Amino acid sequence: MSKDYNVIAGRSVERLAALSDDVFAVAMTLLVLDLKGPASALIHSEAELADALIGVAPHLLVYLMSFLLLGIFWVGQQTQLNHLARSDRGLSWIHLAFLFFVSLVPFTTGLMADYLHYRLALGIYWLNILALGAVLYWALCHSQTHQLVDGEFGDAHSLAIRRRILSAQALYALGAALCFIDTVVSLGFILLVQISYAMGLGLSRRART
Amino acid sequence: MSKDYNVIAGRSVERLAALSDDVFAVAMTLLVLDLKGPASALIHSEAELADALIGVAPHLLVYLMSFLLLGIFWVGQQTQLNHLARSDRGLSWIHLAFLFFVSLVPFTTGLMADYLHYRLALGIYWLNILALGAVLYWALCHSQTHQLVDGEFGDAHSLAIRRRILSAQALYALGAALCFIDTVVSLGFILLVQISYAMGLGLSRRART
Amino acid sequence: MSKDYNVIAGRSVERLAALSDDVFAVAMTLLVLDLKGPASALIHSEAELADALIGVAPHLLVYLMSFLLLGIFWVGQQTQLNHLARSDRGLSWIHLAFLFFVSLVPFTTGLMADYLHYRLALGIYWLNILALGAVLYWALCHSQTHQLVDGEFGDAHSLAIRRRILSAQALYALGAALCFIDTVVSLGFILLVQISYAMGLGLSRRART
Amino acid sequence: MSKDYNVIAGRSVERLAALSDDVFAVAMTLLVLDLKGPASALIHSEAELADALIGVAPHLLVYLMSFLLLGIFWVGQQTQLNHLARSDRGLSWIHLAFLFFVSLVPFTTGLMADYLHYRLALGIYWLNILALGAVLYWALCHSQTHQLVDGEFGDAHSLAIRRRILSAQALYALGAALCFIDTVVSLGFILLVQISYAMGLGLSRRART
Repeated sequence: MSKDYNVIAGRSVERLAALSDDVFAVAMTLLVLDLKGPASALIHSEAELADALIGVAPHLLVYLMSFLLLGIFWVGQQTQLNHLARSDRGLSWIHLAFLFFVSLVPFTTGLMADYLHYRLALGIYWLNILALGAVLYWALCHSQTHQLVDGEFGDAHSLAIRRRILSAQALYALGAALCFIDTVVSLGFILLVQISYAMGLGLSRRART
Repeated sequence: MSKDYNVIAGRSVERLAALSDDVFAVAMTLLVLDLKGPASALIHSEAELADALIGVAPHLLVYLMSFLLLGIFWVGQQTQLNHLARSDRGLSWIHLAFLFFVSLVPFTTGLMADYLHYRLALGIYWLNILALGAVLYWALCHSQTHQLVDGEFGDAHSLAIRRRILSAQALYALGAALCFIDTVVSLGFILLVQISYAMGLGLSRRART
Repeated sequence: MSKDYNVIAGRSVERLAALSDDVFAVAMTLLVLDLKGPASALIHSEAELADALIGVAPHLLVYLMSFLLLGIFWVGQQTQLNHLARSDRGLSWIHLAFLFFVSLVPFTTGLMADYLHYRLALGIYWLNILALGAVLYWALCHSQTHQLVDGEFGDAHSLAIRRRILSAQALYALGAALCFIDTVVSLGFILLVQISYAMGLGLSRRART
Repeated sequence: MSKDYNVIAGRSVERLAALSDDVFAVAMTLLVLDLKGPASALIHSEAELADALIGVAPHLLVYLMSFLLLGIFWVGQQTQLNHLARSDRGLSWIHLAFLFFVSLVPFTTGLMADYLHYRLALGIYWLNILALGAVLYWALCHSQTHQLVDGEFGDAHSLAIRRRILSAQALYALGAALCFIDTVVSLGFILLVQISYAMGLGLSRRART
């Protein structure tokens, strides 16, 4: 393996961002393939269709949760990428690892949707979230150690992102632990955490002033 | 949750646009997976193939409608995004919500294709359109309240977009209401509205001069 | 419908290009979903696997043809988009129509793969190609009539693109007509035309000097 | 075919990069469709679910390998594209050929996952890797012969990339040859090679100082 190759490889932040957006978009949209309407042969009235769609509702909820999850990590990743002056091969691979776990979300979500009452399914879903957070944390460390961040990005930014990742992961871990009470309680808690992060809207408004 | 994080998160209009384009593209193209040719074992002549394809035609029409719908909202969203000087975390999440409803279009469309004569299926399709319009309206309000728009974007622009969203949604609501007469009439009306918006071509030509 | 809206809508060439790349990419890649290996329960030896894969070969060929087709039209579209100074709402919709026919390629290709010996399937495939060419031609006319092209783009460029579209379409039409002899001859001819366009490599080399 | 057309066609490096990112993203994410949880009707306890998921594990491993493979070639391709000053029609088509083989990865991977113990499946997977390397090597030669590279790109860069492609392909070929001992050994070896390339992290760190 040539050292030279590693120096010239993987330097474009722009293409890393583009690939990431693409993977997120496909992962976000593929999930909808899991939403299947009922087979039309089985439906003979509006009431039967309504009943059948109520059966689809849990899947829609799970889809929403995953979309939220992907949204949270998309915002999290772009916040880091926006402050990169350049990339290197190592960082490209860390983000590729991140995208690997992003691409697993439709699978782990589908599993959880099919096995709502199984702790194993919830545990796998949580491991996916954990991996996303851990790799994003690693990306931050790598980009700081290797001085890839831009001039604007100071210690306050770094601290804010680290705190954010760690506190979110703590809450997800707590939510996952609730599965020892009940997997639906666990899922509900995780959903609340996700919604509150997406709702950061209000906070963000205050923070601007 | 750190205020700092919310201040630095979600600021890139460019990446928001890129993610949006990706989600639209996947949603537009996934719909085609619903177009399935007949199973070849059942077909023994050109006439039988023609018959089978005539059975596919309603699905093609529905696909066209959804493509039109996605096209209309893609143009609508990019019109707003083009006039953003910057984004914030709140706006990113509003657009993520928009993309969530974009990603549902293949599902709600597929449902309508399978249950053309059920008001419930049409109602869900309409709710999807309504949600798309409402979230886009919300995005406009948010970007103005938070001064995210660029210098070129004045009150006339804002008014034009608002009027456009409201008048279109009024027509879609009217179309949806027609389902109490007949769902096919309802669908036909919505299709005509969509085509007339896409055909804005002529108007646009005059408007330029 | 507000005139103002039509004036401010659909002006970004960049986002049109991004959406187009996305739709092409998904269409190019979705086709591979049609390539299915044999069910593993049916295979008990290398020889049986080889036999089964020989059965997949025609689909691979068809996939290659469609990839070629999408590649040809992607190059064709980007050649036009690269020379746009700006876009308008009309042009956005013409390109959306183009993308609609792009997104149909996996369907029409799949149909042809399943019904290789049916003229109807070949006819539909050819209509798809015809629509792609016609809409691209329309896009060129529109962008010239509305002065959307950049300063570099002169009459020689326009003529070159027009000649290229018309001659290619004439050859595709000839190829399609060959289906009255045999659909496989027809397909083979279209494939040769496509390969010779992709092979423009050699010509391009000479043209540069 | 007009020479003029070939001169003006396919010149945008940016759009080539965008299309490539899109195709990679879809190919990376489509692979996850092959990961299917067990049918819920068959599962009645956590233990049964665990058993069923252990059955999914080989597919996950294969998915990881393919993701690695796509990652390696994505980094490889962007390293070249980042150093292009411009493109031409020939180079566009070489990269389209590259993307064709990229889009085949989900198919050849799925085949290998289904027929882990068949040399034919492994051989096809290896041919896919070989084609990716060969086309990328061809792209490098073409871009140098036609002076499409930027000023920064010197002979040292070219040599580094060539050496990298050739040494990697030599190792993959060796790995593929191991299938005459055992296909699983062969796969394991290829996986180790891929991981060591992705792990180039450490080397890259040293190379920077």
